[in-house]
Order: sequence, then C-alpha cells, then structure tokens
Amino acid sequence: MINKQPMTNEIETIRSTAAIGVDLGGSFIKIGLISSKGRILQFKEEPTPEGGPETILQGILTLILTFVKEYSNEYEILGVGIGLPGVVQFKEGFVINPPNMPGWKSFNVLQFFKSKLDLPVFIDNDANVMALAEAVWGAGKDCRQIVCLTLGTGVGGGIVIDKELYHGASGGAGELGHVIVQAGGRQCGCGNKGCLEAYLGANYIIAHTVELLDSYPASILNKIYSESAELTPPDILEAVKADDPLGMKIVDEMAYYLGIGIGSIINVFNPDMVIIGGGLCNFGEYLLGPARKVAEECAMEGLFEDVKIVQAEFKNRAGVIGAGSLVFGKNEYRMSIND
Amino acid sequence: MINKQPMTNEIETIRSTAAIGVDLGGSFIKIGLISSKGRILQFKEEPTPEGGPETILQGILTLILTFVKEYSNEYEILGVGIGLPGVVQFKEGFVINPPNMPGWKSFNVLQFFKSKLDLPVFIDNDANVMALAEAVWGAGKDCRQIVCLTLGTGVGGGIVIDKELYHGASGGAGELGHVIVQAGGRQCGCGNKGCLEAYLGANYIIAHTVELLDSYPASILNKIYSESAELTPPDILEAVKADDPLGMKIVDEMAYYLGIGIGSIINVFNPDMVIIGGGLCNFGEYLLGPARKVAEECAMEGLFEDVKIVQAEFKNRAGVIGAGSLVFGKNEYRMSIND
Repeated sequence: MINKQPMTNEIETIRSTAAIGVDLGGSFIKIGLISSKGRILQFKEEPTPEGGPETILQGILTLILTFVKEYSNEYEILGVGIGLPGVVQFKEGFVINPPNMPGWKSFNVLQFFKSKLDLPVFIDNDANVMALAEAVWGAGKDCRQIVCLTLGTGVGGGIVIDKELYHGASGGAGELGHVIVQAGGRQCGCGNKGCLEAYLGANYIIAHTVELLDSYPASILNKIYSESAELTPPDILEAVKADDPLGMKIVDEMAYYLGIGIGSIINVFNPDMVIIGGGLCNFGEYLLGPARKVAEECAMEGLFEDVKIVQAEFKNRAGVIGAGSLVFGKNEYRMSIND
Repeated sequence: MINKQPMTNEIETIRSTAAIGVDLGGSFIKIGLISSKGRILQFKEEPTPEGGPETILQGILTLILTFVKEYSNEYEILGVGIGLPGVVQFKEGFVINPPNMPGWKSFNVLQFFKSKLDLPVFIDNDANVMALAEAVWGAGKDCRQIVCLTLGTGVGGGIVIDKELYHGASGGAGELGHVIVQAGGRQCGCGNKGCLEAYLGANYIIAHTVELLDSYPASILNKIYSESAELTPPDILEAVKADDPLGMKIVDEMAYYLGIGIGSIINVFNPDMVIIGGGLCNFGEYLLGPARKVAEECAMEGLFEDVKIVQAEFKNRAGVIGAGSLVFGKNEYRMSIND
C-alpha cells in the first residue's frame, strides 16, 4: 500500500494536458479533444438537438461528460472551451442574439455549466474561436496582428492581437460582416442595409445568382437549378472552374466586395495577415486572387505591402480547435466567472 | 562650496517632470510644454516654413531648443513627442504619405533629431496623438476601448486600447477616413472611391454644398457665397442654427455618413467610447444627435448600449497634449530607436 500511492502519482504526472473544444452550429455540435499544440486527438459530431438553450446545452454537456469519462485516464483535461453563434458576453455568460436560436438572450451559459461540470468553462463567439485557432496554430502562427474573416451563411470575423482575441467592451468586437460597405444598399438579415454580409453571405450570393439566371440562359447554373430546384456555393464554384459566364460574374462581384472589405480592414487595422475562412474560402484563388487586387487599390499607400491575404488552414474543424485554444490562452478576463 | 552641491541637487529633485509636444500642421507648428497630468504649461505656434522635410524639421528643432533653454531650469523635460500627418512608421522614423507635403517618404525623422537633440523623440500620426490626448486625459479618461474620429479637412482616426495606441503592423492603423462606406461612390483624395472621408471631409462637404446652391435659392449660404466667393464649415453651422434648408440638408447628410461610420466602428470594435474631434466637431449636437440615431440603427444588438458617442474635450490644442503624452506613455515599441 505504501508503494501504490507514489506510483499513481507518477502516472498522474506523465499524462499529457488537453482541452475539450466544442463548436455549436445550427446543424451539428462538434466536439474535440485538443492537445496543447492544437492537434485534434479525438473528434465527434452529433446533430444539434431542437429546442431552447437548456436542451441544446444539455446535449453539449452529455458529449463533454462522455469525453471526460473516456479520455481522463489518458489526458489531464484542463477545461472546456465552447464556440457559440451571436454576440457572446464571454465574461458574464450570455449570448445576445444567436441567429435562428430563440430564447438565449437571458440564459446564462456559464452558470449552466458551473453547477454541472467540475472543469473551467470558457465561451466565445464562433468566428472568434476560428480566428484564434488560425492565429495560434494555423495560417497566422507567425504573425502578430491578425484579422480573420469567415465567409459562410453569414460573414463573421475575429481580431487577434499578439495571440489574444480583441473583445472590445463587452465581447462583441469583430462583427466584420456588419461593416457597411454600401450605405443604403442591399437589405441585410441584421435589419440594416448595405452590410458586407448582404454581399458576401452565402444566402445572399445564392439568391442573387438565382435572380440573374434568366439573363444568362447559356449558364450551366440554369441546368443545375432546373434539375435540383436549388443552387449551392459548390455549384457556383464548379461553374467558375468551367469559365461559365454567370459563375464568373458572381465570383467577380464576390471578389469586389471581399476586396473592399479587406481594404477597409487594412486601413483600420494595418494587420500583418488577413485570413479568409468559412465554407466560401473553398473558392480559393478564384476568389482571393481578384479580391487581393481590389484590396490593394483600397489600401492606403504603405499598408498593403505589410499584409498577407491567405486562406485559412483549418477547414470545418477550426471551431473545435479554436474553442480548445480558449482553454490554453492567457486572457485575464476570461477567467472571471470560473475563478 | 561643500554646502552648495547638495543644495543644487535638492533643487534638481524638486523640478516637476514635463514633456514637449509638437503638432505639425499644414499651416502651423504648435509646440507645448505638457505636464505629467496633461496640462499645457507653455504654448507657442509659428507658421510652418515652406520647404521639404529638412526645412520644416529644422523649424521644429529651433522651437524645441528654445523651449528646452527657457524651461529646463523649472522643469525636468523627459522627451519630445511629435504628431505628423500621414502614415507614420513610428518605430523606423519614416512618414509615408503626408498629404500636401512632398519629399518625406525616404526621410528619417527620428534620425534627424537623434544627432541634434539630447532628448528621446517619439513620433506618431497626428490623429493618433489627438486620440491619445482624449483617451488619457480628455473625454475618454474613464474608458478602456476608445475609437477617436477626427473630422477636419480630412477624416482621421485613432484606436486606443487600455490607454495605449493600437498601431498595427507598421504604425498605419486607424485610417478610419478610408473605410469604404459607399463602394464605387464619391472620388476620394486618396485615389479610391467611396471612402468615409469623401463624404465627411470638410473640402468635400464644402464642394457638395456649393454644387447644391442653385437648388436652394432661398438659402442664406447663397448670399455668403456670392459675397465672399467661398464657404466655410462655420458658415454651414450658422445656416444650420438658422434652420436654413440647405444647411439642414448638408448636416443631415453629414450625420448620415458619420452615423454609418460610427455604426461600423461599433460593430468592429465594440468600444466603450467613440470620440468625435477635429474642426467639424464644433457642429456639436446638430451633428452628433442625428448621427447617434443612425449609428444605433447600424450597430448590432447589444453593442450600442455599451458605447458613449461624445465630442472631444480638447480643441485645437489636442495635438500638442497628445504628442506630449507619447513621452509619458509606456508603449514598448516606441522606444526602439531611442534606446
């Protein structure tokens, strides 16, 4: 018995540290066990349960507890990071306006976990955690002033300075999709007009493409649309690759607004890297090539030379990696409710 | 003689510390002796000499040396801060593109002073130093995340986080006048189209007002323009105060674009204060009142509540105060060339 105790302790000390990262999306909850070097050690995804915050968070909690049970012997799990849609008050625990998820506004996420989980829990906006993943371990790992723009259904953003997220006064900074690029322009889902998201969000791009189908009768997108009654961003990308005139027009318009958005970002932040992530970054150089040219025109003299404009390295698992990295970070504010 | 030495030392130690702040404008060089509390102890201004960087900097040097000679007995002068127009590479010492000042691009300002002055010299962009003055000692002294927008001939900006200027990769951050608010819109002096400055810069506002004179024959601005062959922002302000229809239209347009700019700033930075400075902030609530309403519409839910939108406290001496505050600041990078 005297020998047993030191042996257990010895085993304790050689476990590697890891974090649990959770990425809550409208369709799936993704969970990963993340090493202290940002590697995904274990990964799982499940459909997001339908219901209010309590139902969804209960689903997340069950997944977390499964991971804790399965991997605690092998890894010392330091905490849980969760990426959530909407404006996340990461200190207080509230999620203000997650799109398509009613009932969250007055629900305290951190309090929910505090009573049920014996691990520190950190929350942040989903685009923020993706930006953090890229800044710490991905495309931006050698840069200091990084702005990340995520192009998906919506357009999100994250600002990472010296490997720390810039949160602003209450955690809502980085809503780059809602910078106004066309005053009085296209209606945005946020209620405003002319936001970058209204020109670059996947839904808007698809709707705009459908509007233009009649003007491009020879486009292969007509055939796809008449057969499947819908268009997707990959359809448009295929059209672009085939030099389809409508596909080219759409990607040119996307590149124009993306370039204008990046140009404004350069003038405001003078970053050393702008990282483009999210589903639409699959357009790769078809989109980034012309967007860079527009950004160069928009940027002030002396600032464009400093910046690399690149595609994100992590694909659809950036969220869990970034959520995990919340646990390894050193941001003082994040700790407040967990201490 | 034995008694004299300690007495001198005693006098030495009771001198208050102060900094010299210099504000280089197109028309005037302003210089101030600034206390460690941000108070102007001495002030002087002289016309900016005509010529290249060497001529102008020689003029500044002469003023600095006069101040050092006159006030060194009374104050321990810790250093010199200088606010300069254009993109200022504050670490390296270069000023990239000062408007209306040719020949500066390859001229090293810090090197110029290094060989001629036995004091540390710090340089920064003029809008940045104004922002710093307001953030440290002015309207923003109780706030942490501050964005300052200066409305003058051009539109400048400064971002101050926890009392430190955010510079970006090479010192060019905060060019808020060159955020694009109207893609493909009005021509801006920077060569681009649709910049905030093209809608809010004093020159553009005056030009736009003159364009509209014929459509507003009853406007008092017609009378002023026909008598003096020019219009100034104070003329427009007088017209607004008199409920003049053209004056009202112009200030409404200014407020619209200012509100859109502030709304975008709120969505990107989630600041606790936005400070409006520069000559046009004399429009006060005639401009800020309606601009706040537009900004509220543009801001994401949950972010507008966090922010105060206020007028700058320091008027045309903010530049020297802010330049002086460069000396008292703690920014690690600034020191590099002086160490």
